Amino acid sequence: MRLLAISGSLRAGSYNTALARAAVDLAPEGVDVEVFDGLGNLPLFDADLEGDAHEAVQHLRDEIGAADAVLFVTPEYNGSIPGVLKNAVDWASRPRDDAPLRGKTVAVAGASTGQYGAMWAQQDLRRVLGVAGARVVCPDLPVARAQAVCDPSGAPSPLVCERLRTHLAELVREAAPIPVAA
Amino acid sequence: MRLLAISGSLRAGSYNTALARAAVDLAPEGVDVEVFDGLGNLPLFDADLEGDAHEAVQHLRDEIGAADAVLFVTPEYNGSIPGVLKNAVDWASRPRDDAPLRGKTVAVAGASTGQYGAMWAQQDLRRVLGVAGARVVCPDLPVARAQAVCDPSGAPSPLVCERLRTHLAELVREAAPIPVAA
Repeated sequence: MRLLAISGSLRAGSYNTALARAAVDLAPEGVDVEVFDGLGNLPLFDADLEGDAHEAVQHLRDEIGAADAVLFVTPEYNGSIPGVLKNAVDWASRPRDDAPLRGKTVAVAGASTGQYGAMWAQQDLRRVLGVAGARVVCPDLPVARAQAVCDPSGAPSPLVCERLRTHLAELVREAAPIPVAA
Repeated sequence: MRLLAISGSLRAGSYNTALARAAVDLAPEGVDVEVFDGLGNLPLFDADLEGDAHEAVQHLRDEIGAADAVLFVTPEYNGSIPGVLKNAVDWASRPRDDAPLRGKTVAVAGASTGQYGAMWAQQDLRRVLGVAGARVVCPDLPVARAQAVCDPSGAPSPLVCERLRTHLAELVREAAPIPVAA
């Protein structure tokens, strides 16, 4: 099984990107996790160009298309999803009839330095992903006071790692094909 | 008085951009309306670069800073604000202590081809602008079934123009300095 982790922050020291990276080692055995690297290369969404194969857009669409499930890890900017991440969702939701997000099993997580752990951003993102046609599973995973629960390199604490491990296991369980009865 | 109109769509034939342009002729007498042209030139927001004076970011900040009020005209993508427009708000909300949106009087409007007139996008945008520190005034202005109430060039119908005229008058009234008692 293949899982794609997308961080909504371009900041080099981002706690959210650190969470996405931590997923590589915390996913269930046999699950290959790839951290998407390329959100910052996307052009701004323009509906006139949605059919054009801009290289960075095609890369995003291919990676989502090839994944069995996607974990979106979002910071919160101005009480909602960063424009950077919403822009990626807008591209991945088109063209409508052949969008890589359509029917895709997805979950959200998010970290902030405040006491709510990007909770508003995660709620907005769930709704947006659902409107885009994705199958949104798992509860939110809010990581609050990120600066206190991550070490100076950004690596999450053992407790956060355990919460992320459980989150990933549930996402993978949801994305697994339903076994055919014998 | 100076009013800035910002359309959240980069599409050439955008109904929202047409609404923003219509504001030029529909604003109260003596109000100078400028339609912001440059959302598509903004880089994707990166908190590591928020203090850097990227030319397009500085242009956005200067234009908002120089305006007495701002009208945001938003399409709705995946049930919310386009990433393109949220990205602009993210830039204009930083640096926190000197952000051009802080205390700025703003209103929203929006058009869609569906029957709700970008209502969800407008609600999310109001909330986001408020969190960014703006003073959000006026009710929403939802323009539904835009393809039916605009002519082929995108120009809004007389009825939509009247609604926009009233909206602009209220925004201008809200942005006017409170007269000092004699």
